[in-house]
Amino acid sequence: MSFQKLDELGHKLEALEHALAILGADEATHMAVGGGEKRADAMAALAGMLHRQASAPEIADWIDAAENEDLNDDQRIALAEFRRHYTNLTCLPAEFVERQTSQRLRSEQLWRDLREKNDWKSFRPALEGIVSLVREEAAMRASVLKLDPYDALMEQYDPGNRAADITPVFDKLKTFLKDFAPQALAIQEQRDAKRPRKPLSGTYAIDKQRALGLAMMGAVGFDFTHGSLSVSHHPFCGGVPTDVRITTRYKTSDFLSALMGVLHEAGHALYEQNLPHQWGHWPLGRARGMAVHESQSLFVEKQLGRNPAFWRWALPVVERELGENWSLDDILPWVHHVERGLIRVDADEVTYPLHVILRYELEQELVSGRLEVADLPEAWDAKMHEYLGLSTLDNPADGPMQDVHWPGAAFGYFPSYTLGALMAAQQWAAFEKVHPAANSEISEGHFEAVNDWRRTNIWSQGSRYSTPELIERATGEKLDARFFIEHLEKRYGQA
Amino acid sequence: MSFQKLDELGHKLEALEHALAILGADEATHMAVGGGEKRADAMAALAGMLHRQASAPEIADWIDAAENEDLNDDQRIALAEFRRHYTNLTCLPAEFVERQTSQRLRSEQLWRDLREKNDWKSFRPALEGIVSLVREEAAMRASVLKLDPYDALMEQYDPGNRAADITPVFDKLKTFLKDFAPQALAIQEQRDAKRPRKPLSGTYAIDKQRALGLAMMGAVGFDFTHGSLSVSHHPFCGGVPTDVRITTRYKTSDFLSALMGVLHEAGHALYEQNLPHQWGHWPLGRARGMAVHESQSLFVEKQLGRNPAFWRWALPVVERELGENWSLDDILPWVHHVERGLIRVDADEVTYPLHVILRYELEQELVSGRLEVADLPEAWDAKMHEYLGLSTLDNPADGPMQDVHWPGAAFGYFPSYTLGALMAAQQWAAFEKVHPAANSEISEGHFEAVNDWRRTNIWSQGSRYSTPELIERATGEKLDARFFIEHLEKRYGQA
Ligand SMILES: [Zn+2]
Ligand SMILES: [Zn+2]
Repeated sequence: MSFQKLDELGHKLEALEHALAILGADEATHMAVGGGEKRADAMAALAGMLHRQASAPEIADWIDAAENEDLNDDQRIALAEFRRHYTNLTCLPAEFVERQTSQRLRSEQLWRDLREKNDWKSFRPALEGIVSLVREEAAMRASVLKLDPYDALMEQYDPGNRAADITPVFDKLKTFLKDFAPQALAIQEQRDAKRPRKPLSGTYAIDKQRALGLAMMGAVGFDFTHGSLSVSHHPFCGGVPTDVRITTRYKTSDFLSALMGVLHEAGHALYEQNLPHQWGHWPLGRARGMAVHESQSLFVEKQLGRNPAFWRWALPVVERELGENWSLDDILPWVHHVERGLIRVDADEVTYPLHVILRYELEQELVSGRLEVADLPEAWDAKMHEYLGLSTLDNPADGPMQDVHWPGAAFGYFPSYTLGALMAAQQWAAFEKVHPAANSEISEGHFEAVNDWRRTNIWSQGSRYSTPELIERATGEKLDARFFIEHLEKRYGQA
Repeated sequence: MSFQKLDELGHKLEALEHALAILGADEATHMAVGGGEKRADAMAALAGMLHRQASAPEIADWIDAAENEDLNDDQRIALAEFRRHYTNLTCLPAEFVERQTSQRLRSEQLWRDLREKNDWKSFRPALEGIVSLVREEAAMRASVLKLDPYDALMEQYDPGNRAADITPVFDKLKTFLKDFAPQALAIQEQRDAKRPRKPLSGTYAIDKQRALGLAMMGAVGFDFTHGSLSVSHHPFCGGVPTDVRITTRYKTSDFLSALMGVLHEAGHALYEQNLPHQWGHWPLGRARGMAVHESQSLFVEKQLGRNPAFWRWALPVVERELGENWSLDDILPWVHHVERGLIRVDADEVTYPLHVILRYELEQELVSGRLEVADLPEAWDAKMHEYLGLSTLDNPADGPMQDVHWPGAAFGYFPSYTLGALMAAQQWAAFEKVHPAANSEISEGHFEAVNDWRRTNIWSQGSRYSTPELIERATGEKLDARFFIEHLEKRYGQA
């Protein structure tokens, strides 16, 4: 039986993915510094085995043959996802993948070096090479998937996402934010003038910060029998659903950034831990995609973790763990701090979407050929000026060279960040509508109802639906920017 | 070119072995408790891939063809070891290996359960099944390798070891120890009567014990850029040569056992870290075998770490880390404590070999069929009585049920422990002969010369020579019990 063969293949691929996930997390957390070269060799060899086994030509026949077998409902939707997965994995010729992989590695290395030197001129030819490969890639994906080229790239990260649907949503948000960001900054300035902020300065021992993080993770639902928290230079959520590894990074002078990082990664972890285990060895059992994943981390970090109700409950926990006694009026200005800046990863929830929309717009132009790399610094600067009133013309390191995505040939990924923020707000609104006690429960540290809602509507669905379908089914309507806009108005629009 | 194919295969196998080694170490140190089932599935699948790839039939042709190729010296000895490895791996039919694996897993599970209940009667049929499979296995290995059956089993662990060579060495040691163990105990008793021991009791915080362990590991040569120390329930040395993971287990009431454990595992780690890296992806680049490996751990733990000269240097380090001020006369009675006991793993260096020789003798009889499992408790008891003056007839859990080796079908492994102890003493004697300053250097915390000697004579040789050849080349003569006997007499035979 062909479905049986796919099922067995799923177990083999899961073993290799398990190994890669744990080796990856281990590398960032526990590996000896001298172990890196052999680790890279081992992971490259395992990734090669995984790719070869997952893209073997006979799998196409198994998928076709399984269509005619007597399958139950789970198997039928699993089969559709096997096919989607296989098609996306095999739509590029091996020769192209090799060429792209080596060019991408070279361009990433170059980027690391030249970004530090703020040397756009030397980096430009490498990025031109990458963009030309990405155009090739997009054309090939588009022809196999019967999609527009940029949609075919997004399809890797968020199945079902289409620029034609996203652009109007982003436009509405952009129009709002161009006015709202300066307003929010002015409101913040007035409030700080009226009541100067109490600095959160102090020395917070790492073991105390860790205890605080563990307490918060546990409270929002992290399952410590299926995961752990450790330290790494770049925080991440890795591992496997039965053993999710999240990390943070501590500064003894600033507990809030590590704590918010822990909540963010714990949000990713909750999704992984609560995926449908019975489908664990099928593509169907995976998280839906990057945007939905980010919606889960932002749900915990922004919708819950920066909610004033949350801090009513959290402040006594902070006092217990760190020994500091703050009021809501002390902490909220820091939790809701807004700042106009050049760097996407440092941005707050008001300005972050403008960084993403800028990239979303520019990368579509780059992929389509309407924009050339040579003209990118000017195009970036013009948008940066329009959206945030800042210039990067003399500072490409903090302009078009600031992210690893483009040097790494990951075009079509950026929208996921802001789609995640929009989805998180829409999910919270849908939950609050059916559960009016939402805020009061959270102010008492009860997260059961909100987790049940997410478990039912998001986590347990795995990859059953496309990204837009999943959100529409969970929230009762298509993705709409108004929920996020209302969320921002409520949190940042009041003096 | 066929050697080239073997070389490429070596890289692939190394990647899978790397994954298995790190996943194994991670499981014991950092895995979430609920992650075990998926981890076991993943490791079983990877081990299956490794076995299939390492035993593929075409490899035999590559090995044969490579014999006629123009190879350099390294390649030629690598090829011989590729052949030895392949032959040992493929000399059992797949059907047999599967049958044995499943029966072994069942018998190990049963053993865990029944040992706790001290229930020999229920365990006996399972062990009979295992022994019958081991007889089959030994016969098959013997016929392929043209060796005696028991030698064919030992060949897996220590290439070149033959019962005909080992038995006289063990007999000499046994004859000595049967008299010497009671003498050493009497000497200890008199000394304790004359000068009652100062108890080493205190509360030693785990982070201080860890700092002490790290200081000692570093001093004896452990390279922290290629390895680390963590905690696990059963101490081990795992990982890969570029990232060796050693573990210990702490009791706040007893710093000495954790410290000695750290030194033991650090001895294993030194061997792994100093293997010839240029051969890392060939079988030739591996440690020679279990006995030689144990000789390296026992060298550090017993020859160095229990040497009074070592403690002249170590006591101030202990004082610095733990804040306790002991004299040599306080600490040495604990470091050299001898005790007659039923349990091999708890035994000291005087009585330990008698536990091993008992097993070595009995397992040869079991493999040859001269002894049946039904008669094992009486046979065990008779030897226990003769060698150590203890009875286990009413206590099979601490008699023939005490080790996992037999339930796990690992016959031919036990001699490695005592061979390691003999080799360590012989290596120390050889080193001291060419380096008379040995003890005075160690009393000053200088381990460079002794490590250089071992690097040259043992570590850098990888699997170039058979076990007996390696020892003869390193020490100038065949394995002889007299070095270990002289070592014991010096350390335990003087009032
Ligand atoms: Zn995230
Ligand atoms: Zn050992």
